[in-house]
Amino acid sequence: MSYNLLKGKRGIIFGALNDKSIAWKVAEKAHEEGATFVLTNTPVALRLGELDELAEKTGSIVIPADATNVKDLEKLISEAMNVLGGKLDFVLHSIGMSPNVRKGKTYDDLDYDYLQKTLDISAISFHKVIQVCRKLDAMNEWGSIVAYSYVAAQRTLYGYNDMADAKALLESIARSFGYIYGREKHVRINTISQSPTMTTAGGGIMGFDGLMDFSDRMSPLGNATAEECADYTIALFSDLTRKVTMQNLLHDGGFSSMGMSARAMAIYNKSLEIEYTDIENRAKKGKEKKHE
Amino acid sequence: MSYNLLKGKRGIIFGALNDKSIAWKVAEKAHEEGATFVLTNTPVALRLGELDELAEKTGSIVIPADATNVKDLEKLISEAMNVLGGKLDFVLHSIGMSPNVRKGKTYDDLDYDYLQKTLDISAISFHKVIQVCRKLDAMNEWGSIVAYSYVAAQRTLYGYNDMADAKALLESIARSFGYIYGREKHVRINTISQSPTMTTAGGGIMGFDGLMDFSDRMSPLGNATAEECADYTIALFSDLTRKVTMQNLLHDGGFSSMGMSARAMAIYNKSLEIEYTDIENRAKKGKEKKHE
Amino acid sequence: MSYNLLKGKRGIIFGALNDKSIAWKVAEKAHEEGATFVLTNTPVALRLGELDELAEKTGSIVIPADATNVKDLEKLISEAMNVLGGKLDFVLHSIGMSPNVRKGKTYDDLDYDYLQKTLDISAISFHKVIQVCRKLDAMNEWGSIVAYSYVAAQRTLYGYNDMADAKALLESIARSFGYIYGREKHVRINTISQSPTMTTAGGGIMGFDGLMDFSDRMSPLGNATAEECADYTIALFSDLTRKVTMQNLLHDGGFSSMGMSARAMAIYNKSLEIEYTDIENRAKKGKEKKHE
Amino acid sequence: MSYNLLKGKRGIIFGALNDKSIAWKVAEKAHEEGATFVLTNTPVALRLGELDELAEKTGSIVIPADATNVKDLEKLISEAMNVLGGKLDFVLHSIGMSPNVRKGKTYDDLDYDYLQKTLDISAISFHKVIQVCRKLDAMNEWGSIVAYSYVAAQRTLYGYNDMADAKALLESIARSFGYIYGREKHVRINTISQSPTMTTAGGGIMGFDGLMDFSDRMSPLGNATAEECADYTIALFSDLTRKVTMQNLLHDGGFSSMGMSARAMAIYNKSLEIEYTDIENRAKKGKEKKHE
Repeated sequence: MSYNLLKGKRGIIFGALNDKSIAWKVAEKAHEEGATFVLTNTPVALRLGELDELAEKTGSIVIPADATNVKDLEKLISEAMNVLGGKLDFVLHSIGMSPNVRKGKTYDDLDYDYLQKTLDISAISFHKVIQVCRKLDAMNEWGSIVAYSYVAAQRTLYGYNDMADAKALLESIARSFGYIYGREKHVRINTISQSPTMTTAGGGIMGFDGLMDFSDRMSPLGNATAEECADYTIALFSDLTRKVTMQNLLHDGGFSSMGMSARAMAIYNKSLEIEYTDIENRAKKGKEKKHE
Repeated sequence: MSYNLLKGKRGIIFGALNDKSIAWKVAEKAHEEGATFVLTNTPVALRLGELDELAEKTGSIVIPADATNVKDLEKLISEAMNVLGGKLDFVLHSIGMSPNVRKGKTYDDLDYDYLQKTLDISAISFHKVIQVCRKLDAMNEWGSIVAYSYVAAQRTLYGYNDMADAKALLESIARSFGYIYGREKHVRINTISQSPTMTTAGGGIMGFDGLMDFSDRMSPLGNATAEECADYTIALFSDLTRKVTMQNLLHDGGFSSMGMSARAMAIYNKSLEIEYTDIENRAKKGKEKKHE
Repeated sequence: MSYNLLKGKRGIIFGALNDKSIAWKVAEKAHEEGATFVLTNTPVALRLGELDELAEKTGSIVIPADATNVKDLEKLISEAMNVLGGKLDFVLHSIGMSPNVRKGKTYDDLDYDYLQKTLDISAISFHKVIQVCRKLDAMNEWGSIVAYSYVAAQRTLYGYNDMADAKALLESIARSFGYIYGREKHVRINTISQSPTMTTAGGGIMGFDGLMDFSDRMSPLGNATAEECADYTIALFSDLTRKVTMQNLLHDGGFSSMGMSARAMAIYNKSLEIEYTDIENRAKKGKEKKHE
Repeated sequence: MSYNLLKGKRGIIFGALNDKSIAWKVAEKAHEEGATFVLTNTPVALRLGELDELAEKTGSIVIPADATNVKDLEKLISEAMNVLGGKLDFVLHSIGMSPNVRKGKTYDDLDYDYLQKTLDISAISFHKVIQVCRKLDAMNEWGSIVAYSYVAAQRTLYGYNDMADAKALLESIARSFGYIYGREKHVRINTISQSPTMTTAGGGIMGFDGLMDFSDRMSPLGNATAEECADYTIALFSDLTRKVTMQNLLHDGGFSSMGMSARAMAIYNKSLEIEYTDIENRAKKGKEKKHE
């Protein structure tokens, strides 16, 4: 189903890698909804991924850029306006990576150079994208900028490591810049806090499978998929959400508003019973031995 | 602009009174987007308002109901399904009233019978609507239920009185029932926390004009209008937001994420200067008198 | 260990039933810290409990009162000032009960008369206590009023039922009245959101044991005990926390800031594995059968 | 008044500069409450400030350290344990500085090297302090670590610039490390979100005077002073708050829970009236002119 929600709108989409990426789905849907846009990713990601396929499918061009590099961003955004024939209406930032996670450095043994990179890639790049947009006056009035976050910004999940801090910083940047770009140009800036998603990036997190299952059983509507996240993103790019800004929007099937669901508790309790039975059995054996 | 976002969807809209009402705008837009629906309000409101005009304009019928009365709701919801030819896809709850506010009882002198009415009308009615829907199995899978709230549920505003408590209760009901209706039927339940809006209801709050101005200058995008709120509501009724549930969604031009804006501070400071000048002048005069 | 933190302070403690009650522990500690106070509970609770024992131990007197009854509260608070020889410095509200929970009415089948009672007993009683205090000018400047809440006010827990809504209302009342009593008399009003606690009240909630275990393993410091909650309450009654007001203070060993702990996930995963093994085994058998 | 709350406890206090510093007040009170501790600040700050005076007064020694330098921290924490005769029970982190603010770089024109420094000094230093403590096993069981934050971490205040992002990161670090250090050693980690305070650091923020006044009139109890913040910090170092962790604790006289107070609105409205009168007068003149 498509509705022409983005008819005539222009944008840039950061972070599509392959057809599991949320950004990939956004590109497909934005195209269906009538938008034209530029796709971008780092040169390394472009080699690993299949972005040309997506570009062809959506009538887009690909411009490589490292989102931590201001010069790259200036070039990208200038070219995008040229190619698309005008200022931008939307920008999607779907970028995140932690060298500490990759190299197996735990949170109590962080490498601080890596931490700086985690923050630069996963959060500060968002500021850079926006600052360059603003300096080049690249956004139309009432434009919409979105980045993806995760509930780890508010609540600690073991193994998520310094990405939690990066997401907290990312959400703060959305607020801080949302104020300035909003009052000046009515550009809105939001983050979507998405369910854990089986993308190439998500798959790297420790213990991800069990967490996906727990999250799914906790959420009354189940985990939100990459495709559903793309739908929500389209809604935030559309003119239906013009006064929503500086928000972190939970897109998680209800997970963040749950303390405990019956479904998740059932799994948990089953295991508890086994554990308690074990303890009792051992206790009994202990007693029996003593009686010997 | 319309997009056919609600094509084939059926609903009930509570609380339209006149063309200033947010619910009125929602009805107009839902009609444009292809929905069919029933309008409802209390018999008293129906006499005071102009709902027939709206019904005609949108091809709807009006069924009177007191939303605090379970029997009325049963009749309304059954008839709505009959009239519309099937189960419902969306429900809008735009209902709120405080007898304490109306009768000038301040928060430190509440009448507890009135408080009970405030809660029943403004919050518990939401539970009743949902409970009756569920008992009659009146909602389609992936249906969407929305109620309107206000930031007073989180932050105290002088003069807003027991309506703040009612809104907190309302938002809690959205979460509590969102879990149950979500896991069973994938029905999502959310509240929209809307900017202060110059409706007939809003106009009754003490010191509303100054607050509207402050709120507008604090919000980088300015206050959200009734019409913009209707747009957002349509997005929440559409299939683009299927995994959003149990949320309180701020629709306020950024107000809730602001601590202080330069625009609001400018007004505030101007007045401060005058006050300080007054104090200084009085101090000087005092000194001069002492010198006499 | 005691510190004389409440030396010379007077108060009223609602809701002690037996030595498992948090309010009971608060009374013991407040006595150790040098406070004098009145104990109160409903006539029914007084018959069931052992409050006279506590009164003797702490040099207090017991005055029966139904906290939903304004006349009772007027009598209680007046007498308390007489007995204690002056205005009050602290009030503890540890009251909550849901007839819906007791009678087994689930959240999608609430009895609305019961709901009204849940709200009246568990939340509105807090407003009544404060309103009567204020009307009788019963609190000293910089006094402290505390009520107990639970994380269910923010996040839905299956089985907690309409108590979640009552707690949300309770926390809202703390904010709303905290503003008014604060600006007038510098009285601060807060709620403590306590870990699930094995009191007589807590024990009644459905599936409480499993939840206690989950909550304990999620919380890096483990669940907070009744005694620790009493310690925190003393800190909030002391002069060390004079500028803390209108807050909901999480006292839960970190639970509310956790998304998932390794300890809780270990239990969950163990059960998951069993389930998946079952599914695989059944699938294999299915295959084998097909091969037959 | 002192209570012996910290009798026998040992700690390190970062960030005292002069007698306006919150950390200075904490040192004075911690001394009164029976603690022994080491004072530390950067070599530059030690030259500018009067820390020797405080050291003498509180029987402490001063060890210079740059909190962004891991080697310095290792030396500081090792020496502190030697000097104090054992592991630590508390650590105060009162450190924050933004080169962007200092050099007048606005948020839409950030220097990214400066931003990195802002984050390193104001937030990552907190991680470094904790990581070094943990690696040296420097904290006793049930120890308490506190850092100071500001409401800008949640809500944008014009002129607060990249310090808002730093505070959001700081609060996230408290959560992330609070989980790890809590589960291992029962060490609790919290941030206190303090009212704007007229310290040497606070004074540097743009438009600080007006903001202090607004904040004071919004807060039912008025702004919290440095001395009151020290009292609250002592409570968090004491054994009364052992199960409070991973929290951001608002210490602000109620500010964060206010939407609008009557006192602040009175000031605002006064200025509004003048503005509206001006507009009317100009409109009248315009009309008169037209009538001419």
